[in-house]
Amino acid sequence: MPFLGVGLGLLILTGSSCFVLGAFYEHCDFLRNLHELIQEDPYAFYIREKLYATLQLFNPNCLHRMPDSCSRMSEIMKYGFPGLDDIRVYSDFVLSYDRRNRVAHWVYEHLRAPCVKADGTNINRKECWYQPDMSVPSNFRANLTDYKNSGFDRGHLAAAGNHKCHQTHCNETFYLTNIAPQVGKGFNHDAWNQLEIYVRELTESYGSVYVCTGPLYKPKRQLVGIATYSEHTRPTDEKWCVEYEVIGENTVAVPTHFFKVILVESKMSGGHPYMEAYIMPNAPIGKNINIRNFLADIREIEHIAGLQFFNGIRRSFFFGTNYSTTPEIYNNFQ
Amino acid sequence: MPFLGVGLGLLILTGSSCFVLGAFYEHCDFLRNLHELIQEDPYAFYIREKLYATLQLFNPNCLHRMPDSCSRMSEIMKYGFPGLDDIRVYSDFVLSYDRRNRVAHWVYEHLRAPCVKADGTNINRKECWYQPDMSVPSNFRANLTDYKNSGFDRGHLAAAGNHKCHQTHCNETFYLTNIAPQVGKGFNHDAWNQLEIYVRELTESYGSVYVCTGPLYKPKRQLVGIATYSEHTRPTDEKWCVEYEVIGENTVAVPTHFFKVILVESKMSGGHPYMEAYIMPNAPIGKNINIRNFLADIREIEHIAGLQFFNGIRRSFFFGTNYSTTPEIYNNFQ
Repeated sequence: MPFLGVGLGLLILTGSSCFVLGAFYEHCDFLRNLHELIQEDPYAFYIREKLYATLQLFNPNCLHRMPDSCSRMSEIMKYGFPGLDDIRVYSDFVLSYDRRNRVAHWVYEHLRAPCVKADGTNINRKECWYQPDMSVPSNFRANLTDYKNSGFDRGHLAAAGNHKCHQTHCNETFYLTNIAPQVGKGFNHDAWNQLEIYVRELTESYGSVYVCTGPLYKPKRQLVGIATYSEHTRPTDEKWCVEYEVIGENTVAVPTHFFKVILVESKMSGGHPYMEAYIMPNAPIGKNINIRNFLADIREIEHIAGLQFFNGIRRSFFFGTNYSTTPEIYNNFQ
Repeated sequence: MPFLGVGLGLLILTGSSCFVLGAFYEHCDFLRNLHELIQEDPYAFYIREKLYATLQLFNPNCLHRMPDSCSRMSEIMKYGFPGLDDIRVYSDFVLSYDRRNRVAHWVYEHLRAPCVKADGTNINRKECWYQPDMSVPSNFRANLTDYKNSGFDRGHLAAAGNHKCHQTHCNETFYLTNIAPQVGKGFNHDAWNQLEIYVRELTESYGSVYVCTGPLYKPKRQLVGIATYSEHTRPTDEKWCVEYEVIGENTVAVPTHFFKVILVESKMSGGHPYMEAYIMPNAPIGKNINIRNFLADIREIEHIAGLQFFNGIRRSFFFGTNYSTTPEIYNNFQ
């Protein structure tokens, strides 16, 4: 009889421990698949907290087994998505595509010192050519013919010079999803180029810089009586309008302005990041004008573009959110 | 000795079966959680195929245990999402919010005959009032003050008259996320209202109708020399521009046009749905003009709005994609 009791006890012990083991195995197997999906798909990545919460029966300790599977996408999007419209992941940058305007809403880059250096790389810019991204449905796709004879440059949002570590990275910046119509002389060749160089200098100094670049369609004041709603009686004699040109058969929008939001990570362990933002008009800018004159409040960009930067992180976390236009601000930052 | 052998066999059998049982239990538990999440969250719903694919070790037969948990959201979005920007789920309609313009990109409704009937319901429209949706971040939110003295109506995208089954359904159509600035006389009170009545008549006749409504910002031809890029030399003497007014402190966009895409499900089992689309200018329209004059090609709406309707379903699946403007088209449809 005691022999039977021990046997029964052993049976129950084996059964229950194997049950737990089986559950744990299945749990870890699913977690691995889920983790892979989250690393691959931007929307799964976006709802990752909710997805992991579906697994709360066991505490996911097996997660620690996969530290090396963190993708470049999740690195670039570390500070959150400014918006969620049609997100497209490239090898070294991530963008949200505006299907209505055939120009990106925003392009996010994570710059590191070795990949922005002017020399010492084998990247041949002559091997890069402008091309439409065929993964965009044809009726939302900008084509080369749209830009031809438009009078506008094919201006990079993620600058080609920021992606010198691999030929593919550089090539991909030439997809028309990363391109917007820009005024050439006085803007793309000049002030905008200076801003891009400044970002690369910051990267060389501090090592890790996040940049978000995009177009703006800024409202401006107009007199009443010259536009669409002229038959309407109004209490004021002025109104605000958004007005921008569209070029080519695919009606690619010509932004009125462009913005850059720059976040510099501190070299000090636990140090707060430093942030600044720029708005530049898509128009010829005098050569003697310092780019720091275009420093802007990040909230203005958010309001005009309908984007939200660094969601989940309180603004007080950053250096430089409320700045003057003096160049000394970021001298206190290490 | 044979006793020990039997015991060992029993132990192995119990262990392995309990292992499988444990794995299966954890699998089903997770599947239930995942299924709940997919029913609640639009992005999880969007990537549901990929999410279920993470579970491919066992075949998900336990899925059949939960047939009643299908949410209204997945019913409304049966024919796919036209776009993915900031999707918001209400109790009887789903919309995608345009944070830049403070007006929805699109609003999707699934209408059923009992809920659109003019009488026999206890819905009191006087209990509904226009209100901002406080779940929208404040810098992207339209407020009542934006519409005040603007000269424009607060026009419904999902019509209040389509949601008469519950007071909550009706109340929610008065959130400003579902509202756009519309010309009152000659449009919101007249032609647009006629179109809404027509949709309800279709619903009463056929039982199940899907409607997607939204704003358009349509480009128009302009002479060169009067607008922003006047210093630029151009090969042509005209260009295309998008121009629209913005009202109030929150710069709520006044759409130039509005669209409706209507899909009528066949009463016959296995019958193909019937589809038609309308574009109306946000301007006074003469009382004698038949609404069928505003029939439009769905591809034109897709091109201007940057949206994609019924993705995954081939266009040839529908009746009426290429129609003339005669009212006889849908007489062949049952």
